[in-house]
Amino acid sequence: MSEIRGQARVIIENVQPQVEGGLYPAKFTIGEFVDVTADVFGDGHDHIRAQLLYRHERNEAWTILEMHHQGNDAWAAAFEVKTKGYYLFTVRAWVDHFETWYDGFRKKAAASVDVHVELMEGATYLRRLGKGDPHFAQLADELEDSSRYHEAIASVLSPAFERIVHDHPLIEHETTLGRELTLIVESRRANFSAWYELFPRSAALDEKHGTFRDVVRLLPRISSMGFDVLYLPPIHPIGKINRKGKNNNVQATPGEPGSPWAIGSDEGGHKAVHPELGTLDDFQGLVREAEQYGIDVAMDIAFQCAPDHPYVKDHPQWFKQRPDGSIQYAENPPKKYQDIYPFNFETDDWRNLWQELKSVFEFWIDQGVKIFRVDNPHTKPIRFWQWVIAEINRQYDDIVFLSEAFTRPKIMAALAKVGFTQSYTYFTWRVSKEELMEYVNELVYGPSRYYFRPNFWPNTPDILPFHLQHQGESIFISRLALAATLSSNYGIYGPVYEFCENQPVEGREEYLNSEKYEIRRHDWKHTNRMTDIISMLNRARKDHPALQSTWNVQFCMLSNPNLLAFVKSTRDLSDVLLVVINLDPHNRHSDFLQLPKERLRLGDTINIKLHDLVTDERYTWTQEWNYVELDPYKMPFHLFHLEIHESNL
Amino acid sequence: MSEIRGQARVIIENVQPQVEGGLYPAKFTIGEFVDVTADVFGDGHDHIRAQLLYRHERNEAWTILEMHHQGNDAWAAAFEVKTKGYYLFTVRAWVDHFETWYDGFRKKAAASVDVHVELMEGATYLRRLGKGDPHFAQLADELEDSSRYHEAIASVLSPAFERIVHDHPLIEHETTLGRELTLIVESRRANFSAWYELFPRSAALDEKHGTFRDVVRLLPRISSMGFDVLYLPPIHPIGKINRKGKNNNVQATPGEPGSPWAIGSDEGGHKAVHPELGTLDDFQGLVREAEQYGIDVAMDIAFQCAPDHPYVKDHPQWFKQRPDGSIQYAENPPKKYQDIYPFNFETDDWRNLWQELKSVFEFWIDQGVKIFRVDNPHTKPIRFWQWVIAEINRQYDDIVFLSEAFTRPKIMAALAKVGFTQSYTYFTWRVSKEELMEYVNELVYGPSRYYFRPNFWPNTPDILPFHLQHQGESIFISRLALAATLSSNYGIYGPVYEFCENQPVEGREEYLNSEKYEIRRHDWKHTNRMTDIISMLNRARKDHPALQSTWNVQFCMLSNPNLLAFVKSTRDLSDVLLVVINLDPHNRHSDFLQLPKERLRLGDTINIKLHDLVTDERYTWTQEWNYVELDPYKMPFHLFHLEIHESNL
Repeated sequence: MSEIRGQARVIIENVQPQVEGGLYPAKFTIGEFVDVTADVFGDGHDHIRAQLLYRHERNEAWTILEMHHQGNDAWAAAFEVKTKGYYLFTVRAWVDHFETWYDGFRKKAAASVDVHVELMEGATYLRRLGKGDPHFAQLADELEDSSRYHEAIASVLSPAFERIVHDHPLIEHETTLGRELTLIVESRRANFSAWYELFPRSAALDEKHGTFRDVVRLLPRISSMGFDVLYLPPIHPIGKINRKGKNNNVQATPGEPGSPWAIGSDEGGHKAVHPELGTLDDFQGLVREAEQYGIDVAMDIAFQCAPDHPYVKDHPQWFKQRPDGSIQYAENPPKKYQDIYPFNFETDDWRNLWQELKSVFEFWIDQGVKIFRVDNPHTKPIRFWQWVIAEINRQYDDIVFLSEAFTRPKIMAALAKVGFTQSYTYFTWRVSKEELMEYVNELVYGPSRYYFRPNFWPNTPDILPFHLQHQGESIFISRLALAATLSSNYGIYGPVYEFCENQPVEGREEYLNSEKYEIRRHDWKHTNRMTDIISMLNRARKDHPALQSTWNVQFCMLSNPNLLAFVKSTRDLSDVLLVVINLDPHNRHSDFLQLPKERLRLGDTINIKLHDLVTDERYTWTQEWNYVELDPYKMPFHLFHLEIHESNL
Repeated sequence: MSEIRGQARVIIENVQPQVEGGLYPAKFTIGEFVDVTADVFGDGHDHIRAQLLYRHERNEAWTILEMHHQGNDAWAAAFEVKTKGYYLFTVRAWVDHFETWYDGFRKKAAASVDVHVELMEGATYLRRLGKGDPHFAQLADELEDSSRYHEAIASVLSPAFERIVHDHPLIEHETTLGRELTLIVESRRANFSAWYELFPRSAALDEKHGTFRDVVRLLPRISSMGFDVLYLPPIHPIGKINRKGKNNNVQATPGEPGSPWAIGSDEGGHKAVHPELGTLDDFQGLVREAEQYGIDVAMDIAFQCAPDHPYVKDHPQWFKQRPDGSIQYAENPPKKYQDIYPFNFETDDWRNLWQELKSVFEFWIDQGVKIFRVDNPHTKPIRFWQWVIAEINRQYDDIVFLSEAFTRPKIMAALAKVGFTQSYTYFTWRVSKEELMEYVNELVYGPSRYYFRPNFWPNTPDILPFHLQHQGESIFISRLALAATLSSNYGIYGPVYEFCENQPVEGREEYLNSEKYEIRRHDWKHTNRMTDIISMLNRARKDHPALQSTWNVQFCMLSNPNLLAFVKSTRDLSDVLLVVINLDPHNRHSDFLQLPKERLRLGDTINIKLHDLVTDERYTWTQEWNYVELDPYKMPFHLFHLEIHESNL
């Protein structure tokens, strides 16, 4: 009983944001608002007050915010995070007898009940609150002066007194949460990026093997389309033993280049550059040149080895030895992948393995790389990622890790919880209106909001989804518009995307003649309607803060199942966009769309000017329900900027 | 890095049942099954195995159960709790290389791949597993004998080998949850009780003030109706100062008895008996007599005082003093309740107050009371209840605490979490089919399943709900049937319920001439159709284990919004009931009802014998959809016992 704080009558539960009960930090980026909520309640009918306390880890002092009751015993307060690093926050609450008394006093005064004793009580509270402050002492005297009863009542009912009650909480017997929860605040790049993936070996304008210097020559093109991350598949020496051929043939014929994901040969491993791409200096040159265009080069990290990777000879203990002395290759029984040796993370030498893999990140960060796209992280231990990401973040600033995990939901979630900055998603296979709305609402309004930052890709070198196959340009445009507007992080694998290449291995969601296994020729000088649309979308994303967050989407009512519409808006409504997309690539569709009045804080009189950033057309809407129509052969989407007339706000 | 178990590759998350992250124990009663679930997953494609470990707190040794994968990385195992007290449980999991190898071997063998090396690997696993066991060593030798390659393959593919794999998990680098979660197991009474509330002062058969001896004379009636808890409003001396009169008049006229909830006078306080009801001996006599009928007497605990309660004089520091020297009465400004002094739980003397209130429970437990119905617990600190219930449970066995908290959902939940055995519910106001289904599904399948045990009351002395007013007998029957079959704990306030008394204070959900403020005469010898139905329902509850749990309900499809139907069944389907209720008290309704085939494990051929325990009629159903019809003027519900023909199971 001695440990019980028996006079503390308030309970605090269910404080959010919180990831796995506080085990992992909740993720935010600079400039975002953190909406803290908690269930706060006590016994009886006394008034409760609650405060949010927060601080950056480097500050000693807490900032204190009043929390407000939202109904059903849920309380809330919000603050903007302005500094990178970890924030701590906690909640405290107490029964505020001064406010309880004040509220009762007003009701009694309104009912003309005798309040002589209440005035004396008020004086007592003022003295407890003021602790010797002459102003409070004087006010207390006035309340107790029974010769001035009516003046005393008027004084308590004055706005000045209300301010005293509000500004001077009487904190007695407070309940504290008993622990501090954590946020990690990262740079804006973590939450806002447009990725372009290309194979550098296909970057040449002639028949040669492409090089980093060729990629430098493509930077103006990539920059003019508006991308700010250039992602390159692995650039390391490619294994020569059991090398795969064109279209994933088990054996390459002499001269075939192999898959860049079969890493390592006598020419080096994860810290070396494939000689035909150029030198390490050339790579550094590319990183520096890209920087001039505002583009970060993202490096692929695929922790696996070709049989001739130097690790295999130098650290055989990092691989699984079979009883016949051979090394265990990757397999999915009865299929064998003899060109790949996975690391055995259960090796007794795991500490050295972890350190070596960490040093791979360090090596490339030293070359100027800030973004890593991690290949198949779900086939390496989740605790390894937790450790290595934390280690890197401790040493370096602003490193982004994108998890390429297309696997089961709980594993994707776990990788995000333990530290990945961004993650690939199921967007690639969410096609119908219902699927898209359900998935996006889950990402934005479900618990994963606080740890899983989506990055939407309509295609990747591994995936040409069925819906992109054998259809025209319209579906490429609508999938691009969906990715670029729904998610503040998105990417495409080009130039096959902008050229609308859609020839699959029949019956599979894979590209025929995939660049993964061969060098492709592309007409890098060619621009078309798609490159214009990409440029327009990326420009809109840069111009409009509303497109720089994933967390601000609200879908609109619209009964036509082929039309998807949503509003994206900044918290203060200074930037509002409305996107309408025809998901049917073949037929014109129309319907009436309902504006989300509450979200847009619209009153009964509506006066909204719309500017379509795609067609430059302008409209005025004065109704809640408005007609929209989209012909996929003309343009499958609207991207409206909304100017809401002041009188509505 | 030194603390990291780098080789443990499995993650365990979201273990259930868990209340507030393990802060409070999850509640069960003897004979119930605990369904433990957890998210368990690792990297890659290796096989995972998981085990549930549980033990009663008094046992040292853990019982170990294999968990099974349910899809989407959710794993489950179940065990029956057979002993009262606390149980601990936890989960462990690991990558099972032996099982992974075995599964791969079978696939390779089926594809006729060469498995010489795989057989050697199998031998290695057997040796690691056997640790010198000659049987395993011999089997390993056989697998390695390349002269008997085909026999070795056949041996691995044999059922005997499959049993070895199953029975001998290769536990290496396991992941443990890292903590133990707690269950509290209580006696069956905690989960199965039929309550009857009466005012002992109205128990006389003549014009006199009723006594405990009068209540003894009512025991045969109460017992023949089948109730097993007799709940009495407070039996203590009633305050004389500011006593309330008939119909809650502010001032009683001389001779009026006052409200039993205004506790304490010069005749004693919470440990005394109101003299007109008899003596403490009489009360003990009632408790003993009731026991003979299998009835527990439940005592009302209302921690508040009349102004003349002895505590007020003896412990003025337990009450709030006003500046004029008076004691603060209860109020809801501007309304005053001057007959009640609430305790000031923020008193600096709170330790002594808590101890004294605890001693009230102890006093009555010493008189033979095992069940307490706690009045308005939400107006006393939640941490006080947590402490006092834990203290009482530490000292005594089988004490039941019913929380009479009709307040906001999170507060009702908190009281249940901190220890109340049962709780009043919103059932009293859930009337429509949609409301009932939503509320019951929330109670049974929501997170509160593990801490909130509902007790359904169609009426109480405080509440004559609008739907019971000005309607006939049918609504009384249907509300009773709902309470008694949906919830394994339920109660009525009688005899006004069985006499269908329904006269309100107009416009309010209150009884006119409420027994709370006056003595009422009842025709205690009168029995009627309602008492027959009550007897039948309580008999069915005793005969049918399916009605002795709240957690086994499944609503049936039925499109008519006036007809509610649900199945209640034991886990092994040895007892199955089907309840169909016409919620409309005025009109006959019919519809086709769908049997829940999955729940009842029905195949395509259906052959079910139904016996209506209400009318004794018998039917046979051979279809999934079956016609039902109920005329409220005949009988508004069916209570079918289902005999499912063996061939279906």
